[in-house]
Amino acid sequence: MEFEAKSVAALGARIVERCDALAGLTEEPGVLTRTFLTPMHKQANERIGGWMREAGMEVRIDPIGNIVGRYAGAKSNGPPVLIGSHLDTVRNAGRYDGIMGVITGIAAVEALAHAGRRLPFAVEVVGFGDEEGVRFDSALIGSRAVAGTLPSTALQSRDADGVSVAQAMTAFGLDPKKVGDAVRHRGELLAYLEVHIEQGPVLERLGLPLGVVTAICGATRRRYRIAGEAGHSGTVPMDGRRDALVGAAEAVLAVETVGRAMGVVATVGKIAAEPGATNVIPGGATFTLDLRSEKDALRAEALAELDRRLAEIAKRRALALTFETFHDAPAAPCAPHLQSLFERSIASLGLTPTRLPSGAGHDGMAMVAVAPIGMLFVRCTKGISHNPAEAVIAEDAGLGAQALVAALDDLAGSTA
Amino acid sequence: MEFEAKSVAALGARIVERCDALAGLTEEPGVLTRTFLTPMHKQANERIGGWMREAGMEVRIDPIGNIVGRYAGAKSNGPPVLIGSHLDTVRNAGRYDGIMGVITGIAAVEALAHAGRRLPFAVEVVGFGDEEGVRFDSALIGSRAVAGTLPSTALQSRDADGVSVAQAMTAFGLDPKKVGDAVRHRGELLAYLEVHIEQGPVLERLGLPLGVVTAICGATRRRYRIAGEAGHSGTVPMDGRRDALVGAAEAVLAVETVGRAMGVVATVGKIAAEPGATNVIPGGATFTLDLRSEKDALRAEALAELDRRLAEIAKRRALALTFETFHDAPAAPCAPHLQSLFERSIASLGLTPTRLPSGAGHDGMAMVAVAPIGMLFVRCTKGISHNPAEAVIAEDAGLGAQALVAALDDLAGSTA
Repeated sequence: MEFEAKSVAALGARIVERCDALAGLTEEPGVLTRTFLTPMHKQANERIGGWMREAGMEVRIDPIGNIVGRYAGAKSNGPPVLIGSHLDTVRNAGRYDGIMGVITGIAAVEALAHAGRRLPFAVEVVGFGDEEGVRFDSALIGSRAVAGTLPSTALQSRDADGVSVAQAMTAFGLDPKKVGDAVRHRGELLAYLEVHIEQGPVLERLGLPLGVVTAICGATRRRYRIAGEAGHSGTVPMDGRRDALVGAAEAVLAVETVGRAMGVVATVGKIAAEPGATNVIPGGATFTLDLRSEKDALRAEALAELDRRLAEIAKRRALALTFETFHDAPAAPCAPHLQSLFERSIASLGLTPTRLPSGAGHDGMAMVAVAPIGMLFVRCTKGISHNPAEAVIAEDAGLGAQALVAALDDLAGSTA
Repeated sequence: MEFEAKSVAALGARIVERCDALAGLTEEPGVLTRTFLTPMHKQANERIGGWMREAGMEVRIDPIGNIVGRYAGAKSNGPPVLIGSHLDTVRNAGRYDGIMGVITGIAAVEALAHAGRRLPFAVEVVGFGDEEGVRFDSALIGSRAVAGTLPSTALQSRDADGVSVAQAMTAFGLDPKKVGDAVRHRGELLAYLEVHIEQGPVLERLGLPLGVVTAICGATRRRYRIAGEAGHSGTVPMDGRRDALVGAAEAVLAVETVGRAMGVVATVGKIAAEPGATNVIPGGATFTLDLRSEKDALRAEALAELDRRLAEIAKRRALALTFETFHDAPAAPCAPHLQSLFERSIASLGLTPTRLPSGAGHDGMAMVAVAPIGMLFVRCTKGISHNPAEAVIAEDAGLGAQALVAALDDLAGSTA
């Protein structure tokens, strides 16, 4: 590494400080909530834009409202490396989810600029305006606009006040007709790289500050309903019952068993009994399933195994089982060469590289349509995210930035 | 039997007809809801009082608003047999729960009167004003006032409009200060007999119109809470989870297992996961227990076994389990000599006698404090109760009245 050496702790402290500063831009006093195409989004873009310019980048707002900074490469016309994450938050959010990735990208460019270096490729940093999907009823609007996978109806989605995406774009100073100009086609990007807090406990348990993401998991979400026969809890003997809830209880355990046995993560997060009275045998029960895997084939196998087990439970108990799948997204695999790249960059810092899937969704799920994606996870405290208690050790944030710089340097070597 | 023979079908049709007529006295148009100390309760008392007088009874409203008809015995001073049930209903009720027992009592007296007979004891028929406890937050107010077990604070209970029992009594024309005069002391009643629809499926499954109740089950109701650790459904590996809902699912199955193995009825009627989102591992789970048995010792044993099993589940899964018992009522055993009495009366009709516990609560739970109690169950369609679909075969109702008359006749023989 030829860049100016900077202490990891100081670098990390600066990243955390900037994340904390951005947390002041909120729609709800006292908590952090910042959604797409709002005045607070505009202020976040302005703040980020200022830091990008300080780092030597040319700054623009793209046609969907994403902010993009560009640090030109030594060769003028090759495809750039795009580093990004999102600037929007969930309601009552933490300070690092998304934002830290954008600020880390800026820090990496800053390191290049301070060293007066140009890489063979341009480095662009993007702050996507919408990943969480809080304001409108669809997520990843910012990155899907760039990947060209936004459906034509997306701009008609309305927020709780009835304002459409198109109307909000106009109010933001954008032209909804030009949304297609945000698209980056396949071949136009050398790579899409993202640094993100893990949002899970794996790195903390391993005692490692950084990890290489293998894939963003695919996910299937279903709502199940079991129908049995309601009855008086005192008057219907145990043997004559068709209790929908005990069937659902067996199903919840089957979900756990299948998850453990097949190496997928499987969760029942909601459950209810009908009619839901202490003294009535449940005639119905509903529950949800969230099943994720980095491998789509494995997810399909696990679902098939679960289907078999649930059908057996329903048959044995004379219950009727139905479900609807309300979400089904394929996995977004990280490019093997970018996994190796991050592995080398982690090792170059004297750390042990480890690989792990991302159970949470990220902008890479959209970007994988147009670019090889690579993701670096930074350890977060107790795996807590989407919560004001979200925390990151400053030194870990600094290591993330150093690993990103090392990865860019490595890429520069291989493309030089 | 020396009474005027009446066809069972005609007798039953008359009972059902009177139940149907009383169903017209409702507080909610289109459905049947009749609660304690309301104008509809007063109208029900008037209608019942008219039928009692037609049957040759002297009629009074007791100090808590129960209607009581008395058919004098051959000996003037001995303790009477009290036949009763309740006139109030649940919301959106069926037409037979409670009411049928009162009307069957009147039909039995009518049979005596038509035959011009007096038994050695007086026969009284009571229509209790409150058993269901819908209006005020306590049940069995009518029968507990008669049993002398109403707590001193009971008249201060308020309905949804803030009206106290005492205020409602005054509006009904009663004097709250005189509630103590409703009490019948031990020794003042020869027996308390009640005819009631089964409200369960047992007699229908056995193909029998009538059954002898062994006891009104004791019941324990609890609210359980399991605390684990919430987490992101995608990012927390299966092995690192402390999912409160899978613990609750094991608990639901343990409740069923204990119920089956130990011969009690045990039900989980309500369940919830916290925070209750598809993509969040439940950090908490709550559920209810309703466990009933005709034998208090068996209920205690089953609860102890359940406690052991749930503690094991919580320990194995590193979950914290707590509960509160919000209802605990002992069983009300039917007097053995009254069980035998009803058994003989059923057999006298050429039917096979069977014994079964009552899983539902009845006025006998209060009356057992002051009198030997006996209960006769009449088959109801599909075990449905507390529902407008509640139904009884007219001939079964007629058989119930005949069995009651036979029982009175038998008692008369043994006390003559």
